Amino acid sequence: MRELLESLAAGERTVEEVEAAIAGYATGEAGRFDAARDRRTGVPEAILGAGKTPEEVASLASVALETTGRALCTRVTEAMVAAVERTIADAYPDVSVEHDHRSKTLVVKQPSFSQPELTASVGIVTAGTSDGGPAGEAAVIAREMGAAVQRIDDVGVACVTRTIDQLDRMLEQDVLVVAAGREGALPTVIAGLVDVPLIGLPVSNGYGFGGDGRAALSGMCQSCTPITLVNIDNGFAAGAQAGLICRAIDRSAEK
Amino acid sequence: MRELLESLAAGERTVEEVEAAIAGYATGEAGRFDAARDRRTGVPEAILGAGKTPEEVASLASVALETTGRALCTRVTEAMVAAVERTIADAYPDVSVEHDHRSKTLVVKQPSFSQPELTASVGIVTAGTSDGGPAGEAAVIAREMGAAVQRIDDVGVACVTRTIDQLDRMLEQDVLVVAAGREGALPTVIAGLVDVPLIGLPVSNGYGFGGDGRAALSGMCQSCTPITLVNIDNGFAAGAQAGLICRAIDRSAEK
Amino acid sequence: MRELLESLAAGERTVEEVEAAIAGYATGEAGRFDAARDRRTGVPEAILGAGKTPEEVASLASVALETTGRALCTRVTEAMVAAVERTIADAYPDVSVEHDHRSKTLVVKQPSFSQPELTASVGIVTAGTSDGGPAGEAAVIAREMGAAVQRIDDVGVACVTRTIDQLDRMLEQDVLVVAAGREGALPTVIAGLVDVPLIGLPVSNGYGFGGDGRAALSGMCQSCTPITLVNIDNGFAAGAQAGLICRAIDRSAEK
Amino acid sequence: MRELLESLAAGERTVEEVEAAIAGYATGEAGRFDAARDRRTGVPEAILGAGKTPEEVASLASVALETTGRALCTRVTEAMVAAVERTIADAYPDVSVEHDHRSKTLVVKQPSFSQPELTASVGIVTAGTSDGGPAGEAAVIAREMGAAVQRIDDVGVACVTRTIDQLDRMLEQDVLVVAAGREGALPTVIAGLVDVPLIGLPVSNGYGFGGDGRAALSGMCQSCTPITLVNIDNGFAAGAQAGLICRAIDRSAEK
Amino acid sequence: MRELLESLAAGERTVEEVEAAIAGYATGEAGRFDAARDRRTGVPEAILGAGKTPEEVASLASVALETTGRALCTRVTEAMVAAVERTIADAYPDVSVEHDHRSKTLVVKQPSFSQPELTASVGIVTAGTSDGGPAGEAAVIAREMGAAVQRIDDVGVACVTRTIDQLDRMLEQDVLVVAAGREGALPTVIAGLVDVPLIGLPVSNGYGFGGDGRAALSGMCQSCTPITLVNIDNGFAAGAQAGLICRAIDRSAEK
Amino acid sequence: MRELLESLAAGERTVEEVEAAIAGYATGEAGRFDAARDRRTGVPEAILGAGKTPEEVASLASVALETTGRALCTRVTEAMVAAVERTIADAYPDVSVEHDHRSKTLVVKQPSFSQPELTASVGIVTAGTSDGGPAGEAAVIAREMGAAVQRIDDVGVACVTRTIDQLDRMLEQDVLVVAAGREGALPTVIAGLVDVPLIGLPVSNGYGFGGDGRAALSGMCQSCTPITLVNIDNGFAAGAQAGLICRAIDRSAEK
Amino acid sequence: MRELLESLAAGERTVEEVEAAIAGYATGEAGRFDAARDRRTGVPEAILGAGKTPEEVASLASVALETTGRALCTRVTEAMVAAVERTIADAYPDVSVEHDHRSKTLVVKQPSFSQPELTASVGIVTAGTSDGGPAGEAAVIAREMGAAVQRIDDVGVACVTRTIDQLDRMLEQDVLVVAAGREGALPTVIAGLVDVPLIGLPVSNGYGFGGDGRAALSGMCQSCTPITLVNIDNGFAAGAQAGLICRAIDRSAEK
Amino acid sequence: MRELLESLAAGERTVEEVEAAIAGYATGEAGRFDAARDRRTGVPEAILGAGKTPEEVASLASVALETTGRALCTRVTEAMVAAVERTIADAYPDVSVEHDHRSKTLVVKQPSFSQPELTASVGIVTAGTSDGGPAGEAAVIAREMGAAVQRIDDVGVACVTRTIDQLDRMLEQDVLVVAAGREGALPTVIAGLVDVPLIGLPVSNGYGFGGDGRAALSGMCQSCTPITLVNIDNGFAAGAQAGLICRAIDRSAEK
Repeated sequence: MRELLESLAAGERTVEEVEAAIAGYATGEAGRFDAARDRRTGVPEAILGAGKTPEEVASLASVALETTGRALCTRVTEAMVAAVERTIADAYPDVSVEHDHRSKTLVVKQPSFSQPELTASVGIVTAGTSDGGPAGEAAVIAREMGAAVQRIDDVGVACVTRTIDQLDRMLEQDVLVVAAGREGALPTVIAGLVDVPLIGLPVSNGYGFGGDGRAALSGMCQSCTPITLVNIDNGFAAGAQAGLICRAIDRSAEK
Repeated sequence: MRELLESLAAGERTVEEVEAAIAGYATGEAGRFDAARDRRTGVPEAILGAGKTPEEVASLASVALETTGRALCTRVTEAMVAAVERTIADAYPDVSVEHDHRSKTLVVKQPSFSQPELTASVGIVTAGTSDGGPAGEAAVIAREMGAAVQRIDDVGVACVTRTIDQLDRMLEQDVLVVAAGREGALPTVIAGLVDVPLIGLPVSNGYGFGGDGRAALSGMCQSCTPITLVNIDNGFAAGAQAGLICRAIDRSAEK
Repeated sequence: MRELLESLAAGERTVEEVEAAIAGYATGEAGRFDAARDRRTGVPEAILGAGKTPEEVASLASVALETTGRALCTRVTEAMVAAVERTIADAYPDVSVEHDHRSKTLVVKQPSFSQPELTASVGIVTAGTSDGGPAGEAAVIAREMGAAVQRIDDVGVACVTRTIDQLDRMLEQDVLVVAAGREGALPTVIAGLVDVPLIGLPVSNGYGFGGDGRAALSGMCQSCTPITLVNIDNGFAAGAQAGLICRAIDRSAEK
Repeated sequence: MRELLESLAAGERTVEEVEAAIAGYATGEAGRFDAARDRRTGVPEAILGAGKTPEEVASLASVALETTGRALCTRVTEAMVAAVERTIADAYPDVSVEHDHRSKTLVVKQPSFSQPELTASVGIVTAGTSDGGPAGEAAVIAREMGAAVQRIDDVGVACVTRTIDQLDRMLEQDVLVVAAGREGALPTVIAGLVDVPLIGLPVSNGYGFGGDGRAALSGMCQSCTPITLVNIDNGFAAGAQAGLICRAIDRSAEK
Repeated sequence: MRELLESLAAGERTVEEVEAAIAGYATGEAGRFDAARDRRTGVPEAILGAGKTPEEVASLASVALETTGRALCTRVTEAMVAAVERTIADAYPDVSVEHDHRSKTLVVKQPSFSQPELTASVGIVTAGTSDGGPAGEAAVIAREMGAAVQRIDDVGVACVTRTIDQLDRMLEQDVLVVAAGREGALPTVIAGLVDVPLIGLPVSNGYGFGGDGRAALSGMCQSCTPITLVNIDNGFAAGAQAGLICRAIDRSAEK
Repeated sequence: MRELLESLAAGERTVEEVEAAIAGYATGEAGRFDAARDRRTGVPEAILGAGKTPEEVASLASVALETTGRALCTRVTEAMVAAVERTIADAYPDVSVEHDHRSKTLVVKQPSFSQPELTASVGIVTAGTSDGGPAGEAAVIAREMGAAVQRIDDVGVACVTRTIDQLDRMLEQDVLVVAAGREGALPTVIAGLVDVPLIGLPVSNGYGFGGDGRAALSGMCQSCTPITLVNIDNGFAAGAQAGLICRAIDRSAEK
Repeated sequence: MRELLESLAAGERTVEEVEAAIAGYATGEAGRFDAARDRRTGVPEAILGAGKTPEEVASLASVALETTGRALCTRVTEAMVAAVERTIADAYPDVSVEHDHRSKTLVVKQPSFSQPELTASVGIVTAGTSDGGPAGEAAVIAREMGAAVQRIDDVGVACVTRTIDQLDRMLEQDVLVVAAGREGALPTVIAGLVDVPLIGLPVSNGYGFGGDGRAALSGMCQSCTPITLVNIDNGFAAGAQAGLICRAIDRSAEK
Repeated sequence: MRELLESLAAGERTVEEVEAAIAGYATGEAGRFDAARDRRTGVPEAILGAGKTPEEVASLASVALETTGRALCTRVTEAMVAAVERTIADAYPDVSVEHDHRSKTLVVKQPSFSQPELTASVGIVTAGTSDGGPAGEAAVIAREMGAAVQRIDDVGVACVTRTIDQLDRMLEQDVLVVAAGREGALPTVIAGLVDVPLIGLPVSNGYGFGGDGRAALSGMCQSCTPITLVNIDNGFAAGAQAGLICRAIDRSAEK
């Protein structure tokens, strides 16, 4: 620790870097950032845009970049993306910026960031076009954890032979995240045909009784094939757990 | 009407028969029986056992037998069946009695009862064993309305190839009633593969969130293929509407 | 199949046409369109506007026009209608365009499209003015499936003699779709008076407890006369199933 | 007050009588009885059986008899009736006892009790047999408040012409209580045809979605004709408010 | 009827007037208006603004004015008021227009309209300022039915002595409408102190669990004093039933 | 710690005593008992009977007695009380046993147990007889934490002057727990009149909409006077927090 | 009272001051202000901005300032703050104005206002940044009641060691308010570690099933450590009850 | 296939064995058994006792034994265990029978059954005693799929240091199933400290608002650390998915 403090005193490190290294988190204007989460739990802390101002997102993104070399933001608006870009333009001119409109994710990385890489793969399956947002969020998180990601789209049960056609590609994956809204039957049908771990991701579409993903959530809870699931639209949790399964698989292969 | 009253005065008809003929309903000790419902709506009035005492069921069954030649009881207990049998033993020694334990239905008919017969057929499809009760109720009602009834059982989506195997038999039917509990996905999957009218029948199994048929009901409401549905466990409504569709088909064929 | 591929190679058919003919669906920029659905299930695939951008709707409408000769869009906004019209203006100068504001439907057809025609009729009944949107959606779908459609409007139970006045017109139909919001009692009352198949369509009006169609939905589930129903505001499902019943009736008449 | 205390000291009155006269309530072993409620609010305090032991009901009934000359018990079991009869047999050999099984009410009165009598009438209307319990409770309470009570039974909307047949009798009443379970449409239909105050009484029958009276309650809340209502199965509140309306009418006639 | 038709042919009456006189309702561009409702049920038909366009409201208001001499609109926006005023300016230059912002009501009357007048009075009680909207709607409806209306405001149970202070004024009324949001306890407390009919009116304020009037509604359902109630914010039903009670009282006084 | 282990080796202490002293909890056959909870949080660990077998309750009670000198059991059945008495009869012949039927609590203490005593007082207020169970549970817990407990019963708002009559006694308490079922208005009314901390305790009575304590819970959440509350029937939490407030008051007085 | 009236007649006091002094409340244009609440219950009446117009808030704030020397407004918008400032600028040029954006509170005080001061302290604990609004509201109310307020922020259970790190600071407080959204586990965890009174404050964040604070509310109701709680986002109630506990502690210390 | 049929003809195999080998499922009296499920999905089909008669369970267990060498039954009653034992006593005298009362599981195996064995391990963590049932079900399923199972019990967050004490054991597992009822916070807390895949298992205890596992379910959905979860009490799904993760890990290690 002495070394850290000396480097701070010498101006070689910032207050945030040293605080993160010692306490595990760094405190910016917009709250604390859990810089040690990735090391501790295998899942990087994401900055959830919803409920924050663009300035708060930008401030937290700066802290994340400084302490971990990467800022991973979810549920961002265009205004948030602009605020982040404005904020980091001077301080970090060399960062890479990836913004995906559909999944509302933003990933900013320092050139020096060392991206993890796993051999295990996550299949991200969708029932239809409107499942693309949460599915995309899951894909980004899993990829940032190092997993190989395969997309298998538009295979909903309104035409179940379309589902069965893609069975071989599904069986090649190490873990599946299956996103579906409306009645949410796709994870149930797939889990009856494959022998890989499967995480159901209910999506908030539909209207009337059971709309906004509630029918999909309850259907996955009642699934007649055993699956796990996450909250409605929680692509982050689905992707993060899929990533952890991939990590466990890789770790085992290395032994 | 004069004729009716004369026959009553002459003891040739009972009060109930004449009341039913004139007013359309007959009043027994346990309430009114809508004797004209079958003629008016094409669906015979059923005596719902739930919430009635065995004596009330038996009393209404007598009125039904007397005025329409048939008593159709649903959700009956063993005690109700015994009460009905006791009550009609003397008065109607020649009636036929059909009691189905699984579907909790009881049908009693006078020998003179003229059973309707239709050429159109209803396919009653179940996902699994526990859907048998409501599915059986639907089958009995449809049959009593004259429809040809085919059972296609145990084709749930936990193994969707099992569903597809039965596609040809389903396509031979004029209308399908598809019963499913848990996540209730079976009607959705079938409706994506067939071109016959289809009525979803959610079944009250499952537990926890969305249990007791609620997930199945909301899933059928949100179905990504267009279907109609009925209340949880309401085999009677599913069978009656299937029967009405068969009637419409037959009527058309007769023209 | 060889013939199809040769015609593609010869530039006589588009990629979408050939993909649709072989695989049953065509893939555009905005996702897949199930071109074979009409042939397979008797119900044309509709493009649901809600949750899509105007550009996505227009792109899917183009694919639909190209592969099936008709694009049937529901829950469209004015912006979507404009986008569709813009997109098809050059490519399909001769198409007919029908846009109904109240039901938010849009139907575009190639001159060569062969409209199905059935002799069986669907009666679309409404309780009041505010039921017009979902009822109109049901009417458009049923008509596009070939059914003869009759509107019987403003016969709600706030003045039940108004309902009874229209009984004769209702009895002339082969199947009824009955739309009602608030307490949703109209299908129950009508089903007690007619002997034709009847589909209840709950409508999302009302406020407070049971508002937004929930009272109507639960009332139709609990109806003391046997009816089928669909999700709140799901005019598409009601119209499609009514259309399938009409098809079944016509098929029977043809035998 | 001095007079009261002297009569107590002289043994001419009991502690309960004097406490009730001074404080407005009397305290027995099983809690307080609000002896002044009738005088204060026009509605006698009823002893709700549900949730009490037979002994507690009997103890409160004794206090009620002693302080007001009448004990009015609701939701009583057979065991409670027996306990009350046992308890009062010696102390009050001359009381009249009325126990109605269907409505689960028990009314015990001293010979000296002065029964109120009003000229205004309450019509108690039921949709079907299973509404008889709560409707009966409403009838007993209204009658005990002095109202003339007319029963109009079995006029549910499954056959709405049956409802209309009884319109004249309904119009003769000063206020209507309309009990209905399932979809609970009867109060809505009647309120569209009559010009008397109408209280909807939802009844806890039905099953599945909206069962146990919830559909009826929400349907009455959403009624397209303006009505008031009470909680599910709350015959007491419906009868008491109907009774208060009758009192107001009588009071006015006396002026 | 011949006379009516002759006057129509002679141009002495409009189509709407004659249709209303014969059929009981008049059909305008925006739907039917139940012109006979007032005569039949004692409650004038109100034009509910919510869910209609300003033009539809204006069109229905014209029909109402023409057939009944009065247009009574609820839940109107400023735009609706403007549309009505624009529409009637030329055709009915002499009408009176009353628009109350808080209760969102609009009443337009022909000079020839004969306002009913009753001697019985309705007390409209509110817990606080935010109950003013629905309470005002109730007041307008009751007044338009002829009742004398007294306002007793700001007597919520947060300071229950404030409630008790107004007891005498409440006891002078023939019927009370008590509006309360949040926990909705005011009707319960008042009903324990008065002997007049009382209608609870739950108001949609509050937030979090039980917010938007749901706690008030359920609290009034569970009230430990017997009351009737109406849907959340349904001032119209509360006022209309209070008006019917006043009518019944007046009718009785006239005998 | 050495001392503890030596005393164990010497047979002077039991394994449970030593485990509890070192680890803070003791492990019996029926699970762990958190013997350190009282010291750590000021609230003794209670053994919740619901969901346990009589044997498990008895086993945990033995561990509690051995490690803390007291066993505090809630929601006990008669069978559990018998099992506890049987189990401790031999091992602890001198213990005191208090079993309260209404509140379903059981307190067993070693003679050597040193009962805490506080000068601060908790007023336990109930609306009516049926609130006695949870209120009694709160009273027992608060008393076992040392607080002085005053009962103020039967002061519900059905007669609000009854509530006001007891105001002085309420103002003498240091903290109030106010138990109420049905609409649960009592805490709201009292909190508007007193200046002491007040905890609302909703009780699971009532039926129909908002029954089983849900209306009371939501009403307390929406209370127009600021109060805290606990879960339905959770007398334990109400009593424990009241006890903690008393401890804080006493601690302050000692300074 | 004579003195008050004389001072009014002499123009030494305003109507509002005298009304407040005599009746306990003052009536302004926007409703009544309960000027006596602070004296009666220890909690000042707050002016809830939500549901009021800026003008109404400003009018009530004036009345509050005039009668109690302080106006305490919650859930204020920027427009309300501006309206208050405009209104009081002339009449009260010397007032202090504190507006906190995050907690949406506004406190205005006359220079002569005598701020209460207590020695007891409230710890306001938050799980994360998004809990800051309701926590801040609690802090302002507790402070205005005189309590010493300590903030302990960002100690959520996503990294529970972060929670434990702050245990000493928590144990120094006399009472804790613990705000948490999402799953709301923080109050449960802290209550297992401290022996001070603890009030859980559920916060309306999160999305999908249990979102908007519902999971937090139900989790605090089910907490396996005994706590009290308030409605979702009800910082006012949490702060007010914490303030009352501090008052009770101080009062005790003074004895 | 010919070989199979010849062996059947020769009496060397039973009809069930051959049907299972060819069609993938075997049909007994009580419905179909999906004998191929284990091979297809890696999860053996379990016979769910709930909703079946003892005879049906025994019949299905026989079919399972015959076709797969093992019968795995969940949610069994004592009567079902007895029925299974009776049924198999003669036919399979050598089977092993394991019945666990707490988890209500029953596992019967032929001596020849080849038990799978994996090196990967599942940690089954419980918050308290009452989570033992579902946790035990998860343990049995995971074990039957070959996983090494470790139990880590009684580490609930009522004393969070107890949780942290077991962190090392948790980190040694390859996947964790964390069972918790009440507020269900345990999975959230653990997932913030470990880097292994984690499945939350909500348990149906608790009472009042959010009871029966609903608070735990919604809390896990809202968890501020990313986890997957299953339906309330669905130990089977949690154990099966944990088993699939172990299979994936083992498969990877073998490469």
